[in-house]
Amino acid sequence: MKIAIAQLNYTIGDFEGNRGKIVEHVRRAKKDGAHAVFFAEQAVSGRPAYDLLNDVVFLEKCNETLAEIAAECKGITAVVGLPLQIDNCTISAAAVIHDGKISKYIGKQNVMSRDERYHIGHSKGYEFVRVDGKNVAVVIGSDILVPEQDFGGRADLVVSLKSSRYARGVIADRHEFYSRLAFRTHCPVAFVNQVGGQTDIVYYGSSAVFGKKGETVCQLNNFQEDYAVIDMDAENPPIHVPEQNKTANVYEAVKLGLKDYFAKNGFRQACVGLSGGIDSAVVAALAAEVLGPENVRALMMPSQFSSDHSVEDAVALAENLGIRYDIVPITEIFGQVREAMAPVFGDMPFDVTEENMQSRIRGLLMMSLSNKYGCVVLNTSNKSEIAVGYGTLYGDTIGALSLLGDIYKTEVYDLARYINRKKEVIPVNTLQKAPSAELRPEQKDSDSLPLYDVLDAILYRMIEENQGVYEIIAAGFDNDTVKRVYRMFVRNGYKRYQFCPVLRMSTCTMRKDRILPLTYDTEALMM
Amino acid sequence: MKIAIAQLNYTIGDFEGNRGKIVEHVRRAKKDGAHAVFFAEQAVSGRPAYDLLNDVVFLEKCNETLAEIAAECKGITAVVGLPLQIDNCTISAAAVIHDGKISKYIGKQNVMSRDERYHIGHSKGYEFVRVDGKNVAVVIGSDILVPEQDFGGRADLVVSLKSSRYARGVIADRHEFYSRLAFRTHCPVAFVNQVGGQTDIVYYGSSAVFGKKGETVCQLNNFQEDYAVIDMDAENPPIHVPEQNKTANVYEAVKLGLKDYFAKNGFRQACVGLSGGIDSAVVAALAAEVLGPENVRALMMPSQFSSDHSVEDAVALAENLGIRYDIVPITEIFGQVREAMAPVFGDMPFDVTEENMQSRIRGLLMMSLSNKYGCVVLNTSNKSEIAVGYGTLYGDTIGALSLLGDIYKTEVYDLARYINRKKEVIPVNTLQKAPSAELRPEQKDSDSLPLYDVLDAILYRMIEENQGVYEIIAAGFDNDTVKRVYRMFVRNGYKRYQFCPVLRMSTCTMRKDRILPLTYDTEALMM
Repeated sequence: MKIAIAQLNYTIGDFEGNRGKIVEHVRRAKKDGAHAVFFAEQAVSGRPAYDLLNDVVFLEKCNETLAEIAAECKGITAVVGLPLQIDNCTISAAAVIHDGKISKYIGKQNVMSRDERYHIGHSKGYEFVRVDGKNVAVVIGSDILVPEQDFGGRADLVVSLKSSRYARGVIADRHEFYSRLAFRTHCPVAFVNQVGGQTDIVYYGSSAVFGKKGETVCQLNNFQEDYAVIDMDAENPPIHVPEQNKTANVYEAVKLGLKDYFAKNGFRQACVGLSGGIDSAVVAALAAEVLGPENVRALMMPSQFSSDHSVEDAVALAENLGIRYDIVPITEIFGQVREAMAPVFGDMPFDVTEENMQSRIRGLLMMSLSNKYGCVVLNTSNKSEIAVGYGTLYGDTIGALSLLGDIYKTEVYDLARYINRKKEVIPVNTLQKAPSAELRPEQKDSDSLPLYDVLDAILYRMIEENQGVYEIIAAGFDNDTVKRVYRMFVRNGYKRYQFCPVLRMSTCTMRKDRILPLTYDTEALMM
Repeated sequence: MKIAIAQLNYTIGDFEGNRGKIVEHVRRAKKDGAHAVFFAEQAVSGRPAYDLLNDVVFLEKCNETLAEIAAECKGITAVVGLPLQIDNCTISAAAVIHDGKISKYIGKQNVMSRDERYHIGHSKGYEFVRVDGKNVAVVIGSDILVPEQDFGGRADLVVSLKSSRYARGVIADRHEFYSRLAFRTHCPVAFVNQVGGQTDIVYYGSSAVFGKKGETVCQLNNFQEDYAVIDMDAENPPIHVPEQNKTANVYEAVKLGLKDYFAKNGFRQACVGLSGGIDSAVVAALAAEVLGPENVRALMMPSQFSSDHSVEDAVALAENLGIRYDIVPITEIFGQVREAMAPVFGDMPFDVTEENMQSRIRGLLMMSLSNKYGCVVLNTSNKSEIAVGYGTLYGDTIGALSLLGDIYKTEVYDLARYINRKKEVIPVNTLQKAPSAELRPEQKDSDSLPLYDVLDAILYRMIEENQGVYEIIAAGFDNDTVKRVYRMFVRNGYKRYQFCPVLRMSTCTMRKDRILPLTYDTEALMM
């Protein structure tokens, strides 16, 4: 039995484009003599389509497109994922096409993804497909994760059709899971994933085939379209699988998310506000790499509180990257806003109001640049700041897409060093200086926050590991610091509620994977 | 069998406060000689608690609080809703307390609310409770909606513990549903609801008891805490139920949502930007009514494009309401921003960039006022504008809470007339003039949008009734207009993604009840 697996980049609702890619790979598989070719979960429609899964026109288009694909499948078996409406309920299914005819649908039983639990209903679960006289168990999406499931020695091959999104460490974890499954059931397993960005989600590809001893016999690229044919009857020697590099993978994942956000929305140009700090530097470097320096422009917007090195470092970066930049000081506007409000504020002292004003003036200028030139604002906040609300709503929170919003500050440094691995792209000074918002004289992040290595360690336990305050304190962290961080995390939910879309780089992206009420009694939960 | 129903206003995570209210009503019911007292779904915890339902401390607090309540229930049966963790899965349950001891838990089987489908698992469904020798079927939440369910003539009373949120028309709909259920099963039905605001949700109360002919024998207040005792063995004559007034109910629902948002978050003061238009006038009137005029302040921020009547109408309103106001013209700031960007923009003409600038400057000033005085910005956009993106991101979209974001423009006029029912609070001129954003000379909303009665009719079909483009055209609307509205609706999803929380006044609040991908091929779905 010779099988082909196609790891493709689909676009939600682009039925013509998705069909074109699928049909091209059906033909290629036929030419390569494959008995069957497999495509990812919801390949026909793109995923996650949210409430489009309840849209009659959308569902009809899925069926029409499937019929067109089927017509191209003479002489081969094709298994293609799509959403399907049955009894007024939309399920995630795979159509099994034998020799040009749809012979059956296999539905997903366990809907686990939060992106689907509103919209996808439960179906019957995995089924067998006959390919070249063999029994192939086809499993849709998260059904593969159900541990009780046993193919009872009846399968000659398990094919797992997935749309698995990127998160730190997930590639190695998934491969280990499939390898163990193959070893435990003594049955080869093929993992067929999508690849590509869908707004905040990045499908990482990395489809693979594991032999019955759990050995990797075939592995497709990370973060790129790919395709392979493998003869399951042959002796397939284990291949060497290089270890996954976490920082390199995050870097590639962000790049793919950014690239597809622009490509699939028809955008070309981006703009970034450069502060001289590390976050905006990493964002600008990523944008220049992905979109080309000619499509990225920067604005430096110093105030009277900006230190000399801020503009210098930002200019050095822009010149290293070869992107256009303009320096627009905000001092005059800031003065004008304060003057306008003076009759209202009287002689109340300078406080966080004036700090936020500066950030919001910068937001206003970035959005003006965006409106005038049609360039898309990239947000520059990181996960640590967003978690504790260390940023100005409508100032730091603005943008069409946040590249770093699911990446902790300490990891942003890793990314910066990775970007600098061959030559100094991001000025060393930007990497070395103490982080500061520069909204008042001599301000440092450490005036308001714990040091980032401590903060990140606490936040990681709080967010990714869902640990309570007392658990974290019991692990050795300072009582007051933990409680302070917890309060900041909870009380700044209102800023996250209005945050721009964030590329999801973890299993616990705020606002998506962890939703808290905006109004509740926090203190009761500290005890 | 004498039963008591308690319709109370709970706060999420305020276990002490919730327990206090519950215990007070247990005692009252005992004093009134009731055999049993019933409380709403998730009364102990407040609802919706989202991911707190996976928080160990939160779940422990629920159990502790329940134990404390049980200790107060000597000599009575109490049925109290709470979330409960069983086998690593949180369910929505009711604890049945007999004479001070928890005798069993009844769990919800059908989890239908989108606010719960991530967090609440399926349980076993309704069960019987013996009260005074009778069979009482206790049904949790949406289980009551499952039509196949039949209490098989075995129940003497059905008690439906709910947390039913307000939406236009829902009160009459729910009462009709329960009346029919009682009539069909020939069994009395009691509906026990929560009341109160939880950020964007308003529980409307209106708990009721229906006799076996479907007649209403007891009805509690809308939008207020209430309590009743009823002897189910007595002849309970049908009571007169006044017809629900849709506009009055929306008005009361918004007021309750606003009141509790402030009360439960510990806020006291609000601020509103007054344009002289109808939306901000209605918001200011609501705020003055709910929070007291002394706790509301207004800012008028005219530019060179504002007509004379704008400030005049806004001032007349502020004086009618007795709220403090300041006039801060934005002309100078606007000039300064344009000057600062001039080296970047060169001689590019005035366009939407400069229009948005003005709106964002106003946002900046409102947030400054908010920061300086700790007053909470109330958003003033309506559902029609938000749906088609007729508003500036980070300008019109700002605020802590949107009062009108789920209310169509034509309904905002209804609210304004209702507010003016006794005397002219909102200046007649504000009601009569043509809507305008006044961001360029002579601008009218109708330059960019269909007339609001047409727009709202199309949007209602598109959003609340989920009709496709061709369905709406087939109903007689203009082809081009419908397609234009559809494109505006879809392409402005990115603004809704960053919108502030909106009081939910319909079954189809955008971003909550209808979620669309931010990136997808729109045109394919127009065909």
